[in-house]
Amino acid sequence: MRAWVLKLAVAAVLATGMVAGARAQQSNAKAQQPPPLTDDAAIRAALDEQVTAWNRGDIPGFMETYEDSPETTFVGATSVNKGFDNVLQRYVKGYPNKDVMGTLTFSKLEIRLLPGSNGKTEYAVVVGHFHLERVAKAEGTKDDGIFSLVWHKSPKGWKIVLDHTS
Amino acid sequence: MRAWVLKLAVAAVLATGMVAGARAQQSNAKAQQPPPLTDDAAIRAALDEQVTAWNRGDIPGFMETYEDSPETTFVGATSVNKGFDNVLQRYVKGYPNKDVMGTLTFSKLEIRLLPGSNGKTEYAVVVGHFHLERVAKAEGTKDDGIFSLVWHKSPKGWKIVLDHTS
Repeated sequence: MRAWVLKLAVAAVLATGMVAGARAQQSNAKAQQPPPLTDDAAIRAALDEQVTAWNRGDIPGFMETYEDSPETTFVGATSVNKGFDNVLQRYVKGYPNKDVMGTLTFSKLEIRLLPGSNGKTEYAVVVGHFHLERVAKAEGTKDDGIFSLVWHKSPKGWKIVLDHTS
Repeated sequence: MRAWVLKLAVAAVLATGMVAGARAQQSNAKAQQPPPLTDDAAIRAALDEQVTAWNRGDIPGFMETYEDSPETTFVGATSVNKGFDNVLQRYVKGYPNKDVMGTLTFSKLEIRLLPGSNGKTEYAVVVGHFHLERVAKAEGTKDDGIFSLVWHKSPKGWKIVLDHTS
């Protein structure tokens, strides 16, 4: 009789442990998978990441927000650079060091989602202003300007496919 | 017998006439409905219509290629105009007469269609250069520049939703 009570008690403890373990796993899974961002919030987050990368002097990190495609295009005031690698090289040449890069801020951001007729949103445009706070200056780059960006919701998240900065 | 021959002849003439009429109708229908343009060709045609309207001094005609929406946006070198009416007013103020409008040409046009994952193409971007051949000049407008355009395939055809000209 005592042995039977002991077995029951052990079984109860084990069952409780299993339930608690399952709950903890469930809770971990929730923590690992936060609810997906809205398209608007995802684009804002990508812009924030760009600014953070720029301000630590990390041009390759800044470029991660552009689609890695030969079609990705940067339009400046007087020239067009086509292809991810050419856009990267333009930034590397134009901003050779952290002093020239300065501290970047974006303002007056307007995000416009461009939904398809199937209800899915796979493209968006963003218009905004930029400001570079810096002491050094490099030829051909400005401290202030306006940009328009065309975004594509790719398998890797929202990426810039066209950047026109003037 | 003669009456019978006459009736047959009349019927034959009528039938021939009906067939000819049907053929003519079919031919008219064909003439009225040419095969639909490809997206690329439709955008090029819209750009050609813009140039033609501009060069006859017709700003409202030029504006017909923009989507009639409060979201339609023109980004200039230093300012943003949002809303179809504001974009129209910007053109009217910046180019008050045909001398100031001059003769417009586009060059180095690059059209990039932006297909959705459902295979439908409802957005596109165009990058190009413009040149104005003119004697008169107006403050704040340039003779040469680069533009990027975002297009939407609307029920009324391909329309510009964002124009960034620098």
